[in-house]
Amino acid sequence: MQIIESIGTMQKWSEQKRLQGKRVVLVPTMGYLHGAHLELVREGRKHGDCLVVSVFVNPSQFPPGEDFAAYPRDFQRDRGLLEGEGVDVIFHPGSEAVYPPGYQTRVEVGELSRFLCGPHRPGHFQGVATVVAKLFNMVRPRVAVFGLKDYQQFLIIRRLVEDLNFDIEVVGHPIVREPDGLAMSSRNVYLNAEERKSALCLSRALKKAEDLVLRGERDGGGILRQVGDEIAREPLVRPEYVKLCDPENLQSIKKVEGKALLALAVRVGKARLIDNSLLGA
Amino acid sequence: MQIIESIGTMQKWSEQKRLQGKRVVLVPTMGYLHGAHLELVREGRKHGDCLVVSVFVNPSQFPPGEDFAAYPRDFQRDRGLLEGEGVDVIFHPGSEAVYPPGYQTRVEVGELSRFLCGPHRPGHFQGVATVVAKLFNMVRPRVAVFGLKDYQQFLIIRRLVEDLNFDIEVVGHPIVREPDGLAMSSRNVYLNAEERKSALCLSRALKKAEDLVLRGERDGGGILRQVGDEIAREPLVRPEYVKLCDPENLQSIKKVEGKALLALAVRVGKARLIDNSLLGA
Repeated sequence: MQIIESIGTMQKWSEQKRLQGKRVVLVPTMGYLHGAHLELVREGRKHGDCLVVSVFVNPSQFPPGEDFAAYPRDFQRDRGLLEGEGVDVIFHPGSEAVYPPGYQTRVEVGELSRFLCGPHRPGHFQGVATVVAKLFNMVRPRVAVFGLKDYQQFLIIRRLVEDLNFDIEVVGHPIVREPDGLAMSSRNVYLNAEERKSALCLSRALKKAEDLVLRGERDGGGILRQVGDEIAREPLVRPEYVKLCDPENLQSIKKVEGKALLALAVRVGKARLIDNSLLGA
Repeated sequence: MQIIESIGTMQKWSEQKRLQGKRVVLVPTMGYLHGAHLELVREGRKHGDCLVVSVFVNPSQFPPGEDFAAYPRDFQRDRGLLEGEGVDVIFHPGSEAVYPPGYQTRVEVGELSRFLCGPHRPGHFQGVATVVAKLFNMVRPRVAVFGLKDYQQFLIIRRLVEDLNFDIEVVGHPIVREPDGLAMSSRNVYLNAEERKSALCLSRALKKAEDLVLRGERDGGGILRQVGDEIAREPLVRPEYVKLCDPENLQSIKKVEGKALLALAVRVGKARLIDNSLLGA
């Protein structure tokens, strides 16, 4: 396994692989890897010959006041985990190389960024779209794999690729959960034991909504009420939004006809957690 | 010479050339080609093996109220001229393919877009940055050639390439002038005989400034006054801006120390004309 820090070296490596007819797959991460990341890596392996995992905590996607400085990092641990997965390259550029002095370009996926997490994290999706466009040009993959816990991010990146004509296939991988149902996230380390237990109301609420829809419930208001009640039972959990929306354009919907995305964001202690489920799928 | 309209076909063609070890050069144009475009094409030829000229009148770079509908077009003529230059591919995509329904991504080079033409053409440089990022992904050139009459555009694209890590060399080609000094532009066809004669004050004013600097003038105010006087003598010419600025970051300067960009924009009849000169170079 190679560790590449230089952007130019990464570009040359990838171009070399391309000229050899190899299919490069990218799994972008912010490091502090957990089981869900490793599943993305295994998913990535299915889609090509050369597997690159980027580890970069992107400052521009943390709005002011968020946890950029506190975001957990442990590169040596990440390195060991990725070596165990047989990854070909860890791409680990420095902030100064990614955002050199004079840097001033922004990429924005306008409509999709307006919904769900958008208003709560001003500039976040612009930061994501910009760094992903950059990573795509640094690594030039044929395929890129993203987790569906960040469902809105997945939609935004899929749109970015289509709108800017990147010749890249975007693969979404299903949410990976702990045995008790909590969606895996690097931010789960912020939770103490009590908060962690409270946070289980998210997956419980989603499960309840899934059951309601399976039993024939179609009324969005009814579903949202029961989901809201489930979360409200946990005083440590402060809901940020609970939304039922169209899984393609994220516009709110009132009835579950075909597929509907139920998306949640809450705060628990120092952590902001998101989770979602595709209902009626 | 091939004419390619499909984005997918263009991407495959370019990938094929890349795998054959060829260097693809792109000259992006909005068509209605004149002598300066043909010089860009000849410049492009020097930088690689395969020459692609794109012809696309990009709607998103025309702010509301500008001349998008009236912008001159003559594809058959362009085709003949480019065939004469031995171009390999004319890339001529349709608007619907470039901006399909649901399109919503914007690329913006923030700082450099704030100066000179930026405030007079709201959204123009965002449209330029976005379409150029798209064209780069459609054609995947190693080198792209732009004319320096659009000096601000050149700076913005160079910055875009650096900021988004496109693996592309951006080449700027000097302004090409008619024998009487008028900078070549597709928009010159808007001028009637009298307006065209008046428009010569632009190159005259630039020449005067060059002479002043050669003779040792360093005071920006003095230079701008004489340039302004030269333009004011032509009642058909309505100045939009006359600026002396740093040729790297476009900030206004008061003294010519090292290089200085003198940039002009005026309106004459239906035409908006720009011109510039790098003083002290």
